[in-house]
Amino acid sequence: MATTKRNNRKSNHLLPKSPTGIAGLDEITGGGIPKGRPTLVAGAAGCGKTLFAMEFLVRGATQYDEPGVFLAFEENAEELAQNVASLGFDLHDLVKKKKLIVDYIRVERAEIEEAGEYDLEGLFIRLGYAIDSIGAKRVALDTVEVLFGALPNEGILRAELHRLFRWLKDKGVTAIVTGERGEGLITRFGLEEYVADCVIVLDHRVSEQVSTRRLRIVKYRGSLHGTNEYPFLIGKTGISVLPITSLDLRHPVSTERFANRPM
Amino acid sequence: MATTKRNNRKSNHLLPKSPTGIAGLDEITGGGIPKGRPTLVAGAAGCGKTLFAMEFLVRGATQYDEPGVFLAFEENAEELAQNVASLGFDLHDLVKKKKLIVDYIRVERAEIEEAGEYDLEGLFIRLGYAIDSIGAKRVALDTVEVLFGALPNEGILRAELHRLFRWLKDKGVTAIVTGERGEGLITRFGLEEYVADCVIVLDHRVSEQVSTRRLRIVKYRGSLHGTNEYPFLIGKTGISVLPITSLDLRHPVSTERFANRPM
Amino acid sequence: MATTKRNNRKSNHLLPKSPTGIAGLDEITGGGIPKGRPTLVAGAAGCGKTLFAMEFLVRGATQYDEPGVFLAFEENAEELAQNVASLGFDLHDLVKKKKLIVDYIRVERAEIEEAGEYDLEGLFIRLGYAIDSIGAKRVALDTVEVLFGALPNEGILRAELHRLFRWLKDKGVTAIVTGERGEGLITRFGLEEYVADCVIVLDHRVSEQVSTRRLRIVKYRGSLHGTNEYPFLIGKTGISVLPITSLDLRHPVSTERFANRPM
Amino acid sequence: MATTKRNNRKSNHLLPKSPTGIAGLDEITGGGIPKGRPTLVAGAAGCGKTLFAMEFLVRGATQYDEPGVFLAFEENAEELAQNVASLGFDLHDLVKKKKLIVDYIRVERAEIEEAGEYDLEGLFIRLGYAIDSIGAKRVALDTVEVLFGALPNEGILRAELHRLFRWLKDKGVTAIVTGERGEGLITRFGLEEYVADCVIVLDHRVSEQVSTRRLRIVKYRGSLHGTNEYPFLIGKTGISVLPITSLDLRHPVSTERFANRPM
Amino acid sequence: MATTKRNNRKSNHLLPKSPTGIAGLDEITGGGIPKGRPTLVAGAAGCGKTLFAMEFLVRGATQYDEPGVFLAFEENAEELAQNVASLGFDLHDLVKKKKLIVDYIRVERAEIEEAGEYDLEGLFIRLGYAIDSIGAKRVALDTVEVLFGALPNEGILRAELHRLFRWLKDKGVTAIVTGERGEGLITRFGLEEYVADCVIVLDHRVSEQVSTRRLRIVKYRGSLHGTNEYPFLIGKTGISVLPITSLDLRHPVSTERFANRPM
Amino acid sequence: MATTKRNNRKSNHLLPKSPTGIAGLDEITGGGIPKGRPTLVAGAAGCGKTLFAMEFLVRGATQYDEPGVFLAFEENAEELAQNVASLGFDLHDLVKKKKLIVDYIRVERAEIEEAGEYDLEGLFIRLGYAIDSIGAKRVALDTVEVLFGALPNEGILRAELHRLFRWLKDKGVTAIVTGERGEGLITRFGLEEYVADCVIVLDHRVSEQVSTRRLRIVKYRGSLHGTNEYPFLIGKTGISVLPITSLDLRHPVSTERFANRPM
Repeated sequence: MATTKRNNRKSNHLLPKSPTGIAGLDEITGGGIPKGRPTLVAGAAGCGKTLFAMEFLVRGATQYDEPGVFLAFEENAEELAQNVASLGFDLHDLVKKKKLIVDYIRVERAEIEEAGEYDLEGLFIRLGYAIDSIGAKRVALDTVEVLFGALPNEGILRAELHRLFRWLKDKGVTAIVTGERGEGLITRFGLEEYVADCVIVLDHRVSEQVSTRRLRIVKYRGSLHGTNEYPFLIGKTGISVLPITSLDLRHPVSTERFANRPM
Repeated sequence: MATTKRNNRKSNHLLPKSPTGIAGLDEITGGGIPKGRPTLVAGAAGCGKTLFAMEFLVRGATQYDEPGVFLAFEENAEELAQNVASLGFDLHDLVKKKKLIVDYIRVERAEIEEAGEYDLEGLFIRLGYAIDSIGAKRVALDTVEVLFGALPNEGILRAELHRLFRWLKDKGVTAIVTGERGEGLITRFGLEEYVADCVIVLDHRVSEQVSTRRLRIVKYRGSLHGTNEYPFLIGKTGISVLPITSLDLRHPVSTERFANRPM
Repeated sequence: MATTKRNNRKSNHLLPKSPTGIAGLDEITGGGIPKGRPTLVAGAAGCGKTLFAMEFLVRGATQYDEPGVFLAFEENAEELAQNVASLGFDLHDLVKKKKLIVDYIRVERAEIEEAGEYDLEGLFIRLGYAIDSIGAKRVALDTVEVLFGALPNEGILRAELHRLFRWLKDKGVTAIVTGERGEGLITRFGLEEYVADCVIVLDHRVSEQVSTRRLRIVKYRGSLHGTNEYPFLIGKTGISVLPITSLDLRHPVSTERFANRPM
Repeated sequence: MATTKRNNRKSNHLLPKSPTGIAGLDEITGGGIPKGRPTLVAGAAGCGKTLFAMEFLVRGATQYDEPGVFLAFEENAEELAQNVASLGFDLHDLVKKKKLIVDYIRVERAEIEEAGEYDLEGLFIRLGYAIDSIGAKRVALDTVEVLFGALPNEGILRAELHRLFRWLKDKGVTAIVTGERGEGLITRFGLEEYVADCVIVLDHRVSEQVSTRRLRIVKYRGSLHGTNEYPFLIGKTGISVLPITSLDLRHPVSTERFANRPM
Repeated sequence: MATTKRNNRKSNHLLPKSPTGIAGLDEITGGGIPKGRPTLVAGAAGCGKTLFAMEFLVRGATQYDEPGVFLAFEENAEELAQNVASLGFDLHDLVKKKKLIVDYIRVERAEIEEAGEYDLEGLFIRLGYAIDSIGAKRVALDTVEVLFGALPNEGILRAELHRLFRWLKDKGVTAIVTGERGEGLITRFGLEEYVADCVIVLDHRVSEQVSTRRLRIVKYRGSLHGTNEYPFLIGKTGISVLPITSLDLRHPVSTERFANRPM
Repeated sequence: MATTKRNNRKSNHLLPKSPTGIAGLDEITGGGIPKGRPTLVAGAAGCGKTLFAMEFLVRGATQYDEPGVFLAFEENAEELAQNVASLGFDLHDLVKKKKLIVDYIRVERAEIEEAGEYDLEGLFIRLGYAIDSIGAKRVALDTVEVLFGALPNEGILRAELHRLFRWLKDKGVTAIVTGERGEGLITRFGLEEYVADCVIVLDHRVSEQVSTRRLRIVKYRGSLHGTNEYPFLIGKTGISVLPITSLDLRHPVSTERFANRPM
């Protein structure tokens, strides 16, 4: 092996990480997701990506003193508050304490028909204002495909995705951008995962009538990371990733189902 | 585990649920489908989604004192009455008692050719009037793809789906919207499931010449829920979901077939 | 279980059925196909759907005193008579006795190029006249895709399919409409099966060099029905469905092959 | 079973058949392919469909006193003569004796660019003249997709395929029309097999490095027929279909390979 | 069996063959590829099709006294010389002795944008001149898809492919035309293999981390041929096809890998 | 075997190779990638292709005294420096010593909308200037699909890819061009691998929850090479390819995961 001659001098530029506070995830990622960069969380409907994004903001606000902005395209602030109440998250309280802003943008048909897509510049102004108003360090954008559904070709779509991710980087926030699963692809357009610095895929498979949730870090620029699939649960205190792979997967899932019954 | 520090204070915003009255389903869902929100019930032809939607209305009217409106695009009121008679449902009686309205809308070719799609505004007026006239709390719309078959691109389709679902939410009704299965996708367009708050998939598979019906809750915003596949039967008193997964599936299905014979 | 409170009062609207006379099929369907409604019989080339449709008319005319109209787009009357002679059906005799009309419509290229599709209104007049002239109770239309091959989009195609099926219902005839198999779909367009009240799929698979024919009732609005796959044979007296599923499938198929030899 | 009441009176319209002379095939088909009708022979490149069509004409000319016309789009008369010489067929001799006409039509790009397709009327005149000049009873057309590669939609394509097959029927010739295999479909367009009266598929599969040729009669209007897959060989005297299915397939294939060596 | 009456008289038109000189291949093909006709060699990137085409020319020039012309679209003469040097081929020497011409044509974007494709007439003049200047008997064209990437429809593409192959036949040269593998198809367009007289597919599969190269003769008009898959190696003296199928494939492949090391 | 007569005289044109310095890779390739030619490194998001390209430049600069230019479209110089710091690479130091230039080009939407693609001429000038300014011998371009996402057809795309690869060859640099994985294809467009002289595919598969990285040399013009799949690791000193195939793959991967933890 030629490795003996290698330069092992430590660089000063080790990638800073932002702890998610999601149980088990920071262990797998060696400290969290890339600080000041966007991470793509992709998965099919019902995989838990909105909860993932919200828990990242809630943990940031409550455990790490990092306020956050949640930009929603599908659910409004009240609906989101209701939806995460089952995880024990009190969004109203966080909003009142200026630790969280939930901004709901409704993309209208007319906007798309006229411009061919949602206006990114307007989004930057609005999001920038929200970030500045509470000194947000974290941002969640749910979901990215809503913005680009009418773009005419792959080249323009890629340039626009790049512009969005670049803006988030320039703003210095640690961002989670959720994405929809495509047919046989990681994302709907098959481009989002190339533009992102970090890609986490959430999965929800049924095998012999038993369903299991799994999480996988597909990509992590600038960091060594575990790339196996890890089972995760959505329980009464949020998401829990199990940093093991040899687990009998049926057991914890049954737990999730039973946990549901007394509600 | 970092979970010990977690905020376990119960939120005041726990998601209210609406019992379906469908045997076994409320047990799996921890109380029913999301109250005041739309639920998507998707499946291929013959999977039982129309029956599912109708039983939800019939149980609402007869067991929970919640009147309902059924908006049909494929079958007229008389045909629907005939089709659910085999489940012991008497639609005529419910209509007479102002517990149910069945509204059949026939989408004409000319409407689609001129406008490119069915006019949603007109639908909202007509459906709103029906809801108000009997104080309906439940709505079924069968099926959603009929409205959007001619839309030119994914961005507009998503915006329109979102508008429909938003209108139903604003109206405060608990709605079931049925959807057709796509090729390798949950729904025909692959977007419906992202817009909906709750997604239930009905399946009807043949394995070694024996057919089984299965139900799966793919998504349930704001609620912990069982995500396994559960077998279900369509019998003489409606749908019965079996909240178990270790069942020998062939046995109940045979029962369904034999139950059919004496008719 | 909440089923004890259920309304078990028998409705007056039980769905009437029309016996097909096809051996074994009426047993599986609990009495036949839906009376006064259209049934879709779908399958790939060579699956036997034309024979199925014709046997339904022949049995109607000879055993149930229900005259029928066969609307053919691929084969003319003489060819059809020849093709079903091997099943022992004498179409000429039935035509002479005014028990059957075979109408062959040749769809010309010019019609499609000008109008984009075959003219449904003209079809309704022609078919209506044939029905009235012999008091037909049964209709077969072989095959539906011939009419709609040039339609520009899914929305219009669905509206037109719906119009055709609605006309047949309004006319009060029990109809069999044949459809071609699509790629990975039940039908070519993937819409026909949603519009139809009853869907029967005929299949013809080869496994380890041995071919078997199978029939499955995919959908039956308003009726409980067996949904398993049943083997069937095409023999010297027509189609025979075997209402069992545990059968060793190779045996009857070999019978079919040998039955062929002495011809 | 309701079969006891069935009408078993033999019809006078039993379908006449035309013996192919291909070893084993007439046994499987109960006498040959449909007389006076077109048969589609479909398969991928190298499956042997051109040889099949030519052997049908050669056997007709030499064994059944039925002259034939071969209409070729890919190979000219001299090339075809060379290509079948290895099967022991002497086309030059048959042409000299007025038992065979080989007509090579070269479809030019300009024709397609101007008209969008090859001119069928011109083809009918040319082919009709050839048929009449030697009193041909058999026709082979190799391959059908060459004629229709530029047609704009499925409706027109179907109408034109129907027109071609109808012309062949009206002319009273027993025809073999070859077709190319589509992706996951029987033919390139997925329509040819619905229009044809009889469909034979030739296959050429490799399994564990060993190749086998197989023939299957997918469809045969008006005739009971074996539908299993049968192995076949291309040897020094033409095609031989083995009318058995329980054969160890590797053995005869090895024979074919060794038969090749001494050439 | 009806074979006893068959005409076994040997025709005078047995297909002449051109030996490739590739070890093992002439044994499988019973003497080589069709003399004076084009053979398609198809395969994915890295399968060895350029080497195959070049070895055919080099063997022709050195062993059979048949000069050759290599028409390259991807690599220039110097690059090709370098690339085949590892097989022990000295192209410079052959060019100097007028046994070989390597002509590199660079297809420019402007040509395609203006004309929609490369100008075939110009190619014929240039290639014809090269053939005549050294009395070439063999031609290689690498690869055919470069010429037709911008053609608007299947009908025109087929006509143009046919024109190219016809020109090569008329010129009387034995040609190898390489083609790229398509998705699930033999070639990119799925048409090339129908137009060619002989089709050889090169494959390069990985199974359990071990790679094997395989060759298969998919089609050979006018010749009986082995159709199994044969393993082949690319070694220091060129390509070697192993005319056996029962071989343990891992052994020779390991040999290829080790042979590589001392370079 | 005919190999005894073969010409084994060593050619003077053996392909020169450029050592990558990547542990294990030069062993598999018999000395490295093709000197003075472009190599395509393809793989899905997160496969490690950017690291691969960067390590090639860093090893060149530090071990082989070959300066390099890295042309980035997704990440800027500072981000790249951070991302590779975890491998022990100090880009800032290399840039200061004029051993490395990192040039970040941001493809704007407007450029694509106006011209339909990125301007290659401008790229050549800019890249040429960078190469000349430090006497670069190595170039990395990450990733190629960014340049061509809006091209209208396959013919033009191929011509432009060819132009880019030709320019790199003419410039005499040893280049690594990264490419994105397509659906069922090696690259997004399925053309890149045909144009490149050498193709290396990086893979990242999950099997039974355990992930493994694999490298395969799919194509190597002018060189015999191992074509098996080899496992590789991304560790604290860069990429290590394991030149063995019989390895139990789970072991080293676990090592990678544990190596990650102490960060």
